[in-house]
Formats: sequence, structure tokens, C-alpha cells
Amino acid sequence: MEVPLSAGPGTPTRTPATPADARRTPIPGTPEFTAAVQDRLVEFFATRRPIVEPLGPVFVDAADALERFVLRGGKRTRPAFAWTGWLGAGGDPDSAEAGAVLAACSALELVQACALIHDDIIDSSRTRRGFATVHVDFEQRHGERGWSGDAAHFGASVAILIGDLALAWADDLVHAAGLPPAALARFAPVWAQMRTEVLGGQLLDINGEAVGDESVEAALRINRYKTAAYTVERPLHLGAAIAAADRDLIAAYRTFGTDIGVAFQLRDDLLGVFGDPEVTGKPSGDDLREGKRTVLLAEALRRADATDPSAAHLLRTSIGTDLGADDVTRLRAVLTELGAVDEVERRIADLTDRGLAAIDSSSATPAAKEQLRGMALAATRRTA
Amino acid sequence: MEVPLSAGPGTPTRTPATPADARRTPIPGTPEFTAAVQDRLVEFFATRRPIVEPLGPVFVDAADALERFVLRGGKRTRPAFAWTGWLGAGGDPDSAEAGAVLAACSALELVQACALIHDDIIDSSRTRRGFATVHVDFEQRHGERGWSGDAAHFGASVAILIGDLALAWADDLVHAAGLPPAALARFAPVWAQMRTEVLGGQLLDINGEAVGDESVEAALRINRYKTAAYTVERPLHLGAAIAAADRDLIAAYRTFGTDIGVAFQLRDDLLGVFGDPEVTGKPSGDDLREGKRTVLLAEALRRADATDPSAAHLLRTSIGTDLGADDVTRLRAVLTELGAVDEVERRIADLTDRGLAAIDSSSATPAAKEQLRGMALAATRRTA
Repeated sequence: MEVPLSAGPGTPTRTPATPADARRTPIPGTPEFTAAVQDRLVEFFATRRPIVEPLGPVFVDAADALERFVLRGGKRTRPAFAWTGWLGAGGDPDSAEAGAVLAACSALELVQACALIHDDIIDSSRTRRGFATVHVDFEQRHGERGWSGDAAHFGASVAILIGDLALAWADDLVHAAGLPPAALARFAPVWAQMRTEVLGGQLLDINGEAVGDESVEAALRINRYKTAAYTVERPLHLGAAIAAADRDLIAAYRTFGTDIGVAFQLRDDLLGVFGDPEVTGKPSGDDLREGKRTVLLAEALRRADATDPSAAHLLRTSIGTDLGADDVTRLRAVLTELGAVDEVERRIADLTDRGLAAIDSSSATPAAKEQLRGMALAATRRTA
Repeated sequence: MEVPLSAGPGTPTRTPATPADARRTPIPGTPEFTAAVQDRLVEFFATRRPIVEPLGPVFVDAADALERFVLRGGKRTRPAFAWTGWLGAGGDPDSAEAGAVLAACSALELVQACALIHDDIIDSSRTRRGFATVHVDFEQRHGERGWSGDAAHFGASVAILIGDLALAWADDLVHAAGLPPAALARFAPVWAQMRTEVLGGQLLDINGEAVGDESVEAALRINRYKTAAYTVERPLHLGAAIAAADRDLIAAYRTFGTDIGVAFQLRDDLLGVFGDPEVTGKPSGDDLREGKRTVLLAEALRRADATDPSAAHLLRTSIGTDLGADDVTRLRAVLTELGAVDEVERRIADLTDRGLAAIDSSSATPAAKEQLRGMALAATRRTA
């Protein structure tokens, strides 16, 4: 589910943090931007040490695990949208406030850390970005050291608490960012909305899987809340709130964010089935093997139920099983022949057009429009 | 671990919420106080509905489960200490600010909900206060409805997300309480410290259990962070921070909070072994059966290792097993004969004296001193 929105560079190298950083006017997607976010996060983790250390080395170790997890994170997509939202609403990157804004935007990476750490427990994922997931890391430590009790339960327990810590620290970073009180007061309700929405989206996701909901509507709703609202819409809205943007610009941002966010997820779904493993870094057809409940699959099932019962049967009996290369090829052909791929491409095109139109006709600054157009196209036309 | 600090009434009945509520100057421990906290929580949950409902009935259901969990909660101990801390530092219950202060204090109940819901997953607890725990509730729904996948994993997954929601909403309630910006700025770092400490305390607890740490120091450190800081010290500190209390009063509150909080836990440990099941509501000697790593047990093991190897062997081989009534009686006698019970009683007395002395010589208001004295004695001398 977690794929960077732009094909930017890898984990940025650490550069020294200075208050002047923010004045470099970092442009989202550039190494300067990811480095500036990284600096804010490094600074924040340093402020936690005096709270963590009195509890002793075991807790220091857990906090370090969280820090490593966050600092090796990807493209800083959510902070990038938040920062762009602020700039586009007239935020001045040369103002004294800019550093505080960037810090508040960076807090999104801590919410994301909680979401990923807890998601990995829920999905029983063993690795993430080539590293053991947090619960597996602590499960392995337990096993290696021969501690008592169940190693897997221990790992999950520690990861629950480390995820909680990330969520609590996200708020702490918002509070400590140094936003003016009026900006913080505008920020808080959007922040609240976003956190509730992403948790709700995750809940709908696991519920849909348990219930076996195959509808297009269910898949779209999960995309809306678990991905679009959380990754694009609310980050832009947060930036706009800090800048005291007017209703119209917020509405334009939200339309853009919802449409581009959903389109991004639909592209991700297509890549999960048709993507080149050399480019995506994931085995070919991995989503089919995992049985991911995507709009693509829901659309295919809807069509197959109406016109081709044997295709419907094939999809239902093979998706989510241990598929060979030939099976994947066959399922790809079925999805294409049913017209589901074209339908999803059509949705992506429509959503992208609508999202871009909302931004074009908005009062966002020309530079932000340009930036958002680039981010939207990178997210919806990408091949990886 | 979670035992009310005072033998107050049960779940308060709901009374209509009006802005005038706070002006009743509710006294902690009284039904009026618990009802006033309840009102703030009910009001807050109502404000979440417009955010929750657009996601549909599945999420509404989960949010309802959280609301029921929180509203059936106990004595509102943490809000009571926070409110008393504020009053004792000169907070005026007749001021316009009082309602906001009570709302901010009530947010502690949402942190507590997260802690309990996640703790119940970690401890594999099946019931709490006579109800199925949240993860068991959703496990049972899964089973009853014949959904696909593992019911226990589904239950734990939903409970992880509902606990996260509680933690996020705790912050949302703080932000939405309406504290003046300067008060909120003083509140935030203490709030941050408290959340980090309780998560650290929980982590130390599960780590100590896995590692088999039998030391008195380890048990005391867990008491300090998992119970004392979180239940008494930081709540008082939060109240003091809102009221802009001076350093000396904050120091006195913190000494009182740490000492009384630890003494409370030591009393709880004694009751877990020697308490009358008719009064505690738990089976006699339950902590022995569960193998809870208490200061009492650590002290007994330390003494037995030095003077009575056969007692040490008995303790290590029987604690944490399925004990009969005779075994419990025998273990009680061993703990007493080793002098561990007297030692814990001595610690309770010393801590209580020191905590009360700190408050007596502080600048807290006479009413707050009286109130805190009563709360301290109820917590450390109680029989249930």
C-alpha cells in the first residue's frame, strides 16, 4: 500500500541542521526538501532524549528503533504536500515562521510511522523497505536472547507500544514546532480530522477483508480515507490552514487531494498487477498473490458476474493463492479482457483531469500550481 | 494493574451537560466530579460524530465501542488529580476558564483508554470490569458472523486501531478544550512527558517479564513510570501547569505524586496477594497465580536468596502457576516469614509520610492539601 508518490531520490543524507535551512525554500521532491524534513525530525528526536533516558537503556533502545525507522523513511510525500499547500496559500518561505511550518509538516512522518508499524502487525508483514518490520525485529531479539514467553507476541507487543509512541510524538512535534497560537488553532481540527480518517480507513480495510466485501464502492471508500485524505487532501489542507487560506482555496485543495490521491492509488493497483518488477522492485503480480482488494479487482468481478461466470469463478478461486508466472499472465489477460483495466485507466484520467482543473482555477500561487501539477502527474502516470 | 485510587461510587449516571457544570466546583471523588468528567467526555464524543459518520457504519461501530469503553470507566482518578492540582495552584473553579480546564483534565481518560485497550492485547486479557476486552469483543463478532481469516488476529487488529483512535482523540480533546494559548503551551510539554513515560513504563514491564528481571529496582522503576508518574505525578503537574504554578509547588506535587503513586502500587501488590476477595472482587492470591512481578515478590526473592534457598526455590517454581487455595496460603506465609510484607509496609509508610510532608509544606491551597491528604490515605491504606 505504501508507495512513494514521486520517483525521487532515496533516503536523503543527513546535513547539519540550522535555523537557516528553512530559508533555502526547499522545493518538494528535491533532495534539499527531504534533507530539510530529515533535519527537523533529527532535531525533534534529540529533544525526546532527556525524557527517554531516565527510564533506562531498554526504553532508549525502543526509542532508537523508532528513530531509525522514521529517519530511513522515503520521499516525505505528506510533508511535501503540506508544505506546498502552505506555499500555495501565500506562505512565505523567507518568513520567520517558515521553520515552524516545516517542523509541523514533518510531524506527518510520525503519524505515518505509527500507521506503518501498526499496519505491519495487522498485515503480518515481515519486511519493509528491505528491513525487518518493527515487530519482527523485536521478535528476533527475543528469540536470539532466549527470553521467556512467546517471541512473536513479545515482538507485536513492543511494536504496538512503539507505534503508540510515534503517534504521541507526532502530536508533541506539532506542539513543539513553534507555530503561532492562531495558526496552531487552525491546524488542530484538520490534524484531528486526518488522524481519525486514516484510522477509519485502516479499519474499513481490515473489516472489508474479513467480511469479503467485493464492491467497487467499498474499495473506493478505503482508497479515499486510507490513502487520498491522508496522503494528499489533508496534508494540503493542513498547509492551507496554517496560512489562513480562504474557503475556496481549501475546497480546491481538497478536490485536488481527493481526486489525485484516489488516482494515485488506482495507478498503484495497476502497477501491483502489471508493473515491471525491475522498476517496481516487487515480484510481478504481487497484489494478485496477496489477494489485495483493489478497485481493479472489484471492477473485474462486477463485470465478470454480469457477463462471464467462468472468469468470475477463476478470479475468486485464484486471487490470493500462491500463483505461478503463468497464472499471473492468465489473470492479467482476464482483467484486461473484462475491460477492468480500461475502466480503471479511465477513472485515473477523469480524476486527474478533475483534480488538475480544481487547482488550475484556484487562487493558489503559480509556483504551487506548477508544483502540484508535477506531483499529480508523477503520482498518476508513474511506472514504479 | 488498574485499580481505582479511591473507593468512590461506580460508573456515574449521566446528567445533562451545561456550561454551568464546571461552576458546581465538583470535588474529586464525589459523584458530582465523576459526572462532570463524564459530561465532558460525552460532549467530546458528540463532536467526533461528524468526522466518523462519513466513513460509514463499520467505523461508527468501532467509535461506539470506544465511547462505551470510556464512558463505563471508573473513578476518573487521573482527571481528579489534575483538577486538584489546578485548584491547589490557585485555579478558580468559578472562572470562565474552569470548563476548559475540566475538559483538558478529562482527556487523561482517553490516554487511559488507549493504555488499557493495548495493555489488554499485550496481556491477553479476556475481560475487564466484567465486560469482554475490546479485542475479545471484536474477535467474538468475527467468530459469530463467520467472517474469513483468523478471529483472534482480527480482534487484536481492530483493538490496535481503536486504541490508536483513543490516543489521537486524547490530543484532540486537549486541543478542543478551549484552554488559553499560554496555558496550552505550558500544558503541552508535561502532557508529552506523561505520554512518553507511561509508554516507557509499559515497555519496561513487558521487557522485564521477558528477561525475567527479579530485582527490586526494576519493579520500582516500572511502578514509578507505569503507575506513579502517569496516575498521580503528571496529572497534578498538568493541573499546576495550566494554573502557571511556581517551581516549588510543582516540585512538591511531583514528590507527592511519585511517592504516593508508588505507595499506591505497593498497596495494590499487597492486596493482590492478601486481599479479601469479597472486598477486592478478585480471586484470592490472584497476583501469585498470574506471576505478577511485584516489589513484594522481588523483595521476598532477594531475602530468600540470601537466607533461605528452599523458600527461594518454592517461590520460583510455584509463582505463576495454577495454584490451589492451600498453595496460596503457604506462599502467603513464606512472603510474611521472609519479612517481605513488613518491608513493603515500611516502604508504603515512608513514601506516604514523605509525600504528605511535601504537600504540607507546599504553597498549595488549604482545601487542596486536605483533598490530597484524603486521596493519599485512600490510596495507600485501602483494603480494596
